[in-house]
Amino acid sequence: MSVPTPSLDLADPAIDVVELTRRLCDIPSVSGDEQALADAVEAALRALPGLEVTRDGDAVVARTTLGRPERVLLAGHLDTVPLTDPPNLPVRREQHPVDGDVLVGRGTCDMKGGVGVALALARRVSAAGADARRDVTFVFYDHEEVEAARNGLGRLARNAPHLLAADFAVLLEPSSAIVEGGCNGTLRAEVTTTGKAAHSARPWRGRNAIHDAAPVLARLAAYTPREVEVEGLVFREALNAVLVSGGVATNVIPDRCVVTVNYRFAPAVDAAGAEAHVREVLDGFDVRVVDAADGARPGLHLPAAADFVARTGAAPLPKYGWTDVARFSALGVPAVNYGPGDNATAHADDERCRTAEIEQCLQVLSDWLAGGVA
Amino acid sequence: MSVPTPSLDLADPAIDVVELTRRLCDIPSVSGDEQALADAVEAALRALPGLEVTRDGDAVVARTTLGRPERVLLAGHLDTVPLTDPPNLPVRREQHPVDGDVLVGRGTCDMKGGVGVALALARRVSAAGADARRDVTFVFYDHEEVEAARNGLGRLARNAPHLLAADFAVLLEPSSAIVEGGCNGTLRAEVTTTGKAAHSARPWRGRNAIHDAAPVLARLAAYTPREVEVEGLVFREALNAVLVSGGVATNVIPDRCVVTVNYRFAPAVDAAGAEAHVREVLDGFDVRVVDAADGARPGLHLPAAADFVARTGAAPLPKYGWTDVARFSALGVPAVNYGPGDNATAHADDERCRTAEIEQCLQVLSDWLAGGVA
Repeated sequence: MSVPTPSLDLADPAIDVVELTRRLCDIPSVSGDEQALADAVEAALRALPGLEVTRDGDAVVARTTLGRPERVLLAGHLDTVPLTDPPNLPVRREQHPVDGDVLVGRGTCDMKGGVGVALALARRVSAAGADARRDVTFVFYDHEEVEAARNGLGRLARNAPHLLAADFAVLLEPSSAIVEGGCNGTLRAEVTTTGKAAHSARPWRGRNAIHDAAPVLARLAAYTPREVEVEGLVFREALNAVLVSGGVATNVIPDRCVVTVNYRFAPAVDAAGAEAHVREVLDGFDVRVVDAADGARPGLHLPAAADFVARTGAAPLPKYGWTDVARFSALGVPAVNYGPGDNATAHADDERCRTAEIEQCLQVLSDWLAGGVA
Repeated sequence: MSVPTPSLDLADPAIDVVELTRRLCDIPSVSGDEQALADAVEAALRALPGLEVTRDGDAVVARTTLGRPERVLLAGHLDTVPLTDPPNLPVRREQHPVDGDVLVGRGTCDMKGGVGVALALARRVSAAGADARRDVTFVFYDHEEVEAARNGLGRLARNAPHLLAADFAVLLEPSSAIVEGGCNGTLRAEVTTTGKAAHSARPWRGRNAIHDAAPVLARLAAYTPREVEVEGLVFREALNAVLVSGGVATNVIPDRCVVTVNYRFAPAVDAAGAEAHVREVLDGFDVRVVDAADGARPGLHLPAAADFVARTGAAPLPKYGWTDVARFSALGVPAVNYGPGDNATAHADDERCRTAEIEQCLQVLSDWLAGGVA
């Protein structure tokens, strides 16, 4: 069954932010397959006066160039995780017993609600024209839901870092319309025990690497994660075995066992500091770091951030998951997570988003952009 | 490179038991590919007077039918584990610095030495004709080195159990020409811990099944295997984790971890008794028995066995690995392991067999068959 690609005509006043979100979802855009949606977004932005539009792969950047002393940046990814079977598209708008009026379907939460808000803001910014008090950059990018090396924001940072320059950035990831500051870093390591293979009827001729992993798991199970305050937010850490694998056959004493651990660390330290902590916890074992990514400090003490947080009307929270705010942080751009949608339904089969949150985020961001920095 | 199939002409006196073993090895017979060797063995046996020969799949049974009050059975499997790359065939006969004159190559130890001894004995039994003091059954079978369901001896036990009837059986598995009595049983069980999946940045929303497996491994690591005396032999048990698997992705708290354990238990108890012991050791965990096979009591107090052991000139040992003696035991036929070859080189890349052991086994078995039961 083929359905026509929904129109994203921003000049049509009938397409409000909720309808815009619905249409964005209904152009399927699983990671790697974002082109149709990127084309539609690019065309919609190019139709708006006063925006300079740049395309890089399936990323689209639109910016005002008014020469204002301050620039803020709003970003969201275009891709989604795969659809369910049968597909959880097209989106349904319905009444949820707890959440009220919702959009249900793939991408509604993660994160077409945020993308819809950004496009609706672009329409307002374009309409404001030279009245705008600051310059604004909108970034829509691809490949966020897959391995980091393919991330479209990372590609933009390499290809055209000047397009990402800003004094403050808001990443419109789902955060239930509450500012989530910074993010934890993440580190993966393999803890390997090495034994000696033997027939399982004569184990005294070998050494059991799975048995040797018992104290590795015991230490992880007994570990109490730290809570670390960084710039006023308390980040809750986590250190977990996420994979374990050992043995080759049911009649052989295993000579190798690998426990993969994932450490989510507060942005008080960088990846090197995180590695030192993991090595301390697992002292005496063979620990090999597989990959690591720094977190991001919340930076909420900075004026632009403080002003923005005040307008949301809610106390900010720390972000436990790693998000692309860490990329902005690495570029020297203070950034927060703020967008519609309860992150608990992201990637879920019953993914959904409250329409009230979409409208609320648009209002808060619109007022903030119109009001300027305190 | 194609080589002609070696002849197994038992009428040719130039083919002694060592040469017979070499030729048996040089007809490749990896499990599932035993037909050429079974054909050659069948033809060699059909050429001997006084033997009733039966073929079942790639198993061959040859028996005297003299109506003697006692019948003994000699058995060996025709198949081998896969060849190495490059192939460890054809067999080389050479001087080994420790073992002296040896045959080197796939099957020399496990167990063409034993098959060669059995064929050489069949030649002598045929020649003895009506002078024989007891009836003898020779069993050559397929698919021993693969899963139990395909085992040729098991198939014979289902298809033609009368062919396996005997008062005593010798399984010619490699045992360094020392009687190994009975065998341990073997039981496999899966110990599963069940948690709750969550994002690894927010583990407090889930429960880590790999961490929950820590005490399973700790108990196994701390477990002291029992040594159990059965009919004069001390069987050493073993309880080991042989496989472990848990987790689905490096950013997900694992909701399932499975530890596969292998319990090798003395033939003092049956599989039900073994299961009870495993459940006791792992009390409180979800234990599911995957498969189990009873061991075999040594039965060395029986007259035929005692007489045979005496002739070998060496004190018998317990068999720790599970072998097909357990199948004879289940059929009510006392059985021992006795054959040429050091089991430590079985399946090894440098598989080999001392030629002196092959000749010794032939002599002991020949004298025993000629001498009758005390």
